[in-house]
Amino acid sequence: MSIGGVRIVLVEPAGALNVGSVARIMKNMGLGQLVLVKPQCDRHSEQARLMAVHAVDILERARQVDTMTEALQGCHRAIATTARSRSLPTQLESPRVALPWLLEENITSALIFGPEERGLSNLELNYAQKFVCIPANPEYPSLNLAQAVAVCAYELYQANLQQVDLQSSTPPSITNAPLDILEGYYEHLEQVLLEIDYLYPHTAAARMEKFRRIYNRANLSSEEVAMLRGILKKMQLAIALKNP
Amino acid sequence: MSIGGVRIVLVEPAGALNVGSVARIMKNMGLGQLVLVKPQCDRHSEQARLMAVHAVDILERARQVDTMTEALQGCHRAIATTARSRSLPTQLESPRVALPWLLEENITSALIFGPEERGLSNLELNYAQKFVCIPANPEYPSLNLAQAVAVCAYELYQANLQQVDLQSSTPPSITNAPLDILEGYYEHLEQVLLEIDYLYPHTAAARMEKFRRIYNRANLSSEEVAMLRGILKKMQLAIALKNP
Repeated sequence: MSIGGVRIVLVEPAGALNVGSVARIMKNMGLGQLVLVKPQCDRHSEQARLMAVHAVDILERARQVDTMTEALQGCHRAIATTARSRSLPTQLESPRVALPWLLEENITSALIFGPEERGLSNLELNYAQKFVCIPANPEYPSLNLAQAVAVCAYELYQANLQQVDLQSSTPPSITNAPLDILEGYYEHLEQVLLEIDYLYPHTAAARMEKFRRIYNRANLSSEEVAMLRGILKKMQLAIALKNP
Repeated sequence: MSIGGVRIVLVEPAGALNVGSVARIMKNMGLGQLVLVKPQCDRHSEQARLMAVHAVDILERARQVDTMTEALQGCHRAIATTARSRSLPTQLESPRVALPWLLEENITSALIFGPEERGLSNLELNYAQKFVCIPANPEYPSLNLAQAVAVCAYELYQANLQQVDLQSSTPPSITNAPLDILEGYYEHLEQVLLEIDYLYPHTAAARMEKFRRIYNRANLSSEEVAMLRGILKKMQLAIALKNP
């Protein structure tokens, strides 16, 4: 159980005030790692520093990257935040229920927030294994980005406090495969499904989204990913051998 | 139990951005009554409206008063928020423990926040019956005003939801595939894995157990099982075609 292993990933944040506020609440709640994916504002600007107050160090240490893959490098678990379901055919969990899953000892994990105006796209949501929605007034459920981070960071801090109290009594759970191992599997799966004509290039992305959801829900271990890739290799071999 | 009876009291708020953000998170969390005691900024300013977004109505309906007495008129219960004890001769409670007390049916209650720079004075704290402190990193425990309101408003909304939930049943989740549909998939999978020499008859049972665990964890729907069987069929077809 370690809150220091959780990174906050902001995808294309547009407001410097928001990024500064995020840094402050992160430091308030014991979180230190901020990653910005293609930020649309300057984290070194006066506005950002004004809101960060005594958390300017978090702004300065923040990593800036171009892709989700880079943002999640080395992570074992990722949770994405999203508004009402927007046809997401998977379960949305509340922060209180889902977030403690990010706190397991000795793992690195990520909590992902979308841009202010549009939230995370389906493509971006695909990188996460769980999906969190902050319960809110149905008449106006859309929280400001920094406020959403505040609520989640606060829940993480609470969960961490509670665990420190309970400590040592809980059984070890499955160690998830690192996300880049999982990405490797999805690429391999897509390639084989194209080879056997299950997928067609123009529909591949939409279909693969559904398979990602299935396997993300399963919380695969590295050993299990290796087993699944073993099937794909044998399948390719079977086709090749029958057609030398 | 009624969240509509809780008013948010800001004492001498200095930042219009903060007041606007407070209005937004209030509306997000189903709170409608904002009271400003001697505000040091203009709630009608552009900055306040910018942050309030779709909660400008809360800014406009806000009451502006000169004294704590006026702010608390008609209230049955009041809780004050404060940072680390500052020699307060009373118990500090966490928001999760204390705030549900404000939600009793048919009462009016208040949650009071101090100015950004100094927090509530002892004189102002005296108006409250309970005192809440948001648990935070001892190295930087001071939250931004709007973030502190966000955390408390969220806890109020959660407490309110839990009470409502106790009356209704569990939320809808994914409908799992019937078990015989799932068994059909496992049989089909085993058969194909034998065909492509991934499985051998004497080790098939042990291996299949591992695959069952993966797919059982994923809570497959009937549609998803059909997709997975679609892959198996295409695979068998690919092998047959290559080996007529």
